[in-house]
Amino acid sequence: MSHPVSPLAPKTITALPAVAGVRFATYAAGIRYQGRTDLMVAEMAPGTTVGGVFTKSLTASAPVDLCRENRKKGAARVLVVNAGNANAFTGKKGVAAVKTTVDAAVATFNCAPSEVFVSSTGTIGVPLPAEKIAAALPEAKKALSGDKASDAAHAIMTTDTFAKTATRTATIDGVNVTIIGFCKGAGMIAPDMATMLAYFFTDAKIDAPTAQYLAASAAEKSFNCMTVDSDTSTSDTLLLFATGQAKHAVVGHPHDPRLADFKAKLTDMMIELAKLVARDGEGASKFIEVKVTGAEHDKAAHRIAMSIANSPLVKTAVAGEDANWGRIVMAVGKSGERVDRDKLAIKIGGVDVARDGEAVPGYDETPVVAHMKGQEIVFEVNIGLGFGAATVWTCDFTHGYIDINGSYRT
Amino acid sequence: MSHPVSPLAPKTITALPAVAGVRFATYAAGIRYQGRTDLMVAEMAPGTTVGGVFTKSLTASAPVDLCRENRKKGAARVLVVNAGNANAFTGKKGVAAVKTTVDAAVATFNCAPSEVFVSSTGTIGVPLPAEKIAAALPEAKKALSGDKASDAAHAIMTTDTFAKTATRTATIDGVNVTIIGFCKGAGMIAPDMATMLAYFFTDAKIDAPTAQYLAASAAEKSFNCMTVDSDTSTSDTLLLFATGQAKHAVVGHPHDPRLADFKAKLTDMMIELAKLVARDGEGASKFIEVKVTGAEHDKAAHRIAMSIANSPLVKTAVAGEDANWGRIVMAVGKSGERVDRDKLAIKIGGVDVARDGEAVPGYDETPVVAHMKGQEIVFEVNIGLGFGAATVWTCDFTHGYIDINGSYRT
Repeated sequence: MSHPVSPLAPKTITALPAVAGVRFATYAAGIRYQGRTDLMVAEMAPGTTVGGVFTKSLTASAPVDLCRENRKKGAARVLVVNAGNANAFTGKKGVAAVKTTVDAAVATFNCAPSEVFVSSTGTIGVPLPAEKIAAALPEAKKALSGDKASDAAHAIMTTDTFAKTATRTATIDGVNVTIIGFCKGAGMIAPDMATMLAYFFTDAKIDAPTAQYLAASAAEKSFNCMTVDSDTSTSDTLLLFATGQAKHAVVGHPHDPRLADFKAKLTDMMIELAKLVARDGEGASKFIEVKVTGAEHDKAAHRIAMSIANSPLVKTAVAGEDANWGRIVMAVGKSGERVDRDKLAIKIGGVDVARDGEAVPGYDETPVVAHMKGQEIVFEVNIGLGFGAATVWTCDFTHGYIDINGSYRT
Repeated sequence: MSHPVSPLAPKTITALPAVAGVRFATYAAGIRYQGRTDLMVAEMAPGTTVGGVFTKSLTASAPVDLCRENRKKGAARVLVVNAGNANAFTGKKGVAAVKTTVDAAVATFNCAPSEVFVSSTGTIGVPLPAEKIAAALPEAKKALSGDKASDAAHAIMTTDTFAKTATRTATIDGVNVTIIGFCKGAGMIAPDMATMLAYFFTDAKIDAPTAQYLAASAAEKSFNCMTVDSDTSTSDTLLLFATGQAKHAVVGHPHDPRLADFKAKLTDMMIELAKLVARDGEGASKFIEVKVTGAEHDKAAHRIAMSIANSPLVKTAVAGEDANWGRIVMAVGKSGERVDRDKLAIKIGGVDVARDGEAVPGYDETPVVAHMKGQEIVFEVNIGLGFGAATVWTCDFTHGYIDINGSYRT
């Protein structure tokens, strides 16, 4: 299945530099797709630490179960990701397929089983032919290179219409470190073909609990502030690998002030990638930013913003270029958070359209209509109660989404 | 705006009989629609009691605020409902418009202000020209008749493609009583044009707290088990009026065994109407019943069933006639309720497709494919943990929904 590139795609895909201590390889294992790479392997230097966060789904896949377990040990040597089959809801066969992959990785790369991380994305409910992965690993090993991170970003795509990559240079204790990251996903989820996976690699020297804190806190401010269709995947996985090859002294506490720049850069690149996922949302024709202020507290603001971003009526109105702020009011009202109808204020594209619980009398619709015709839509909602603020990103809800998701799996 | 009649509409619309103590009138007040009735008035006999439930939205409309207040007093004489303008998010003007309507009803029908109930449905954020309603009431009064309940059901339609009516005869203490009901709504909500309103009238002699209990408990098992698009209205209103004209002794306790038949019939007709709303869901091409069993408790089952019924991916799969049970697994997983991936079982159209957390090996897809091509889709999910059960109803998610909700308001 292939779809035209999203009209919201960036003009160029960021090329990823090498990171000391990581090598990548891709391979066409023929798991589901023919004639394209569908497998990526990353080999990390001994001493690499890892942090990660995973789907909150209670029907998480077997690969997610493995990553969650191995993450606790905090050490990583190998990451294996395949596209085309999610190995989710595959019962005992799914657990066996993960074991086949881990065993092959241990044999090929001479590491501990707890140092292997595995992700699978694609159709669910179909047993994964892990023997194809096992057979590919020795071949992939021969092809390993520090320059192939961008290839890896391509190999894990499913319904994605473009590869999503980002990089930053941060300074720790006066030493430059590199961070690269890539992710795939065209829905917060569409479990039979596209779920969200995100991987970050850095040569920074940080211990595993610190890596865990950095991964979790940056994800909270980025990927957790993005939604395409409100459907949560069984496979969502985000991992941060730190090879420790940089020349600074090890950082062993997440609140160490030496991490300030790294933390900011990591969060920033995760936000960049999260926005790219929304831009590649299935059928998306417009990118939407929802900014909520004046809520009771930040969590309330986040829930209100997500209620707006997930509302089918708000999203179809945007697809129809309709500045329908009444639906924003509706979505605020159903969020469950404290609001006062008569204190709400709403801006669309920077123009005040509602204030004190009613339409701004005689506001000029012309700039608002023009804004709605653009590709970047901004909704601002002031709840008028407190200092809670949050920003989330999403896309509109179009005929393309119905086309993509209503088509038979075969 | 008019749309073709839903393919899921019943072959005939149930005609509503007269109920002793209630008279109806309709009127073309020209509030928004031209050339059709858009106002209904019901006059109830002195001594009529009332119960009701309302939207949980925290941005509820001014008419909802009024009904919620007056409901507490428990007595009703007049109901006034207009279509075309929801009088929601209209600030102080909205409160004033409600007062204008109530004052006119008091003057016209010689009742107390607390005995007047008002609903408005249609566009939100536009001031309601209540003077048109006030002017219409004396005219409407002249036209009152016990036989016009069906006309009333038509007058309150917005994006509805058919009128939704139901009736039952119940026995209380050996005496036959009549219940009629009608509702409008083509979305659990689409706030600028369609919200859910439901009214029930009976000649049963029951006190107000009993009416309240009956309305709330039947709504819980019917309308609260139905969703079109997960968007909650600012205007949802359900009212049960009991005129007390029947010849049985007054019933003053909701658990009085004499109410058993009435309670069952009222719940049954609310379920009938709730299903009709799903059948008229915006753009609907298929009606979906989701039955969950084996959950920890009934509330958990309800939340899991609603998570499935609200999932855009499940609903677009149904639109595409795709028996995509993987998306059902996803929706179960994101519900937040306790589940065990490896105990889940799923039937589609009565056929076992998944069991023990994986696909049933070699199940026959032929009857499942045939089922998905039909108009009545049944999903059964057994969680395998306890005895919690729930059934909910919804419709699929089609291009029609995008068309209806993406079009500009003007």
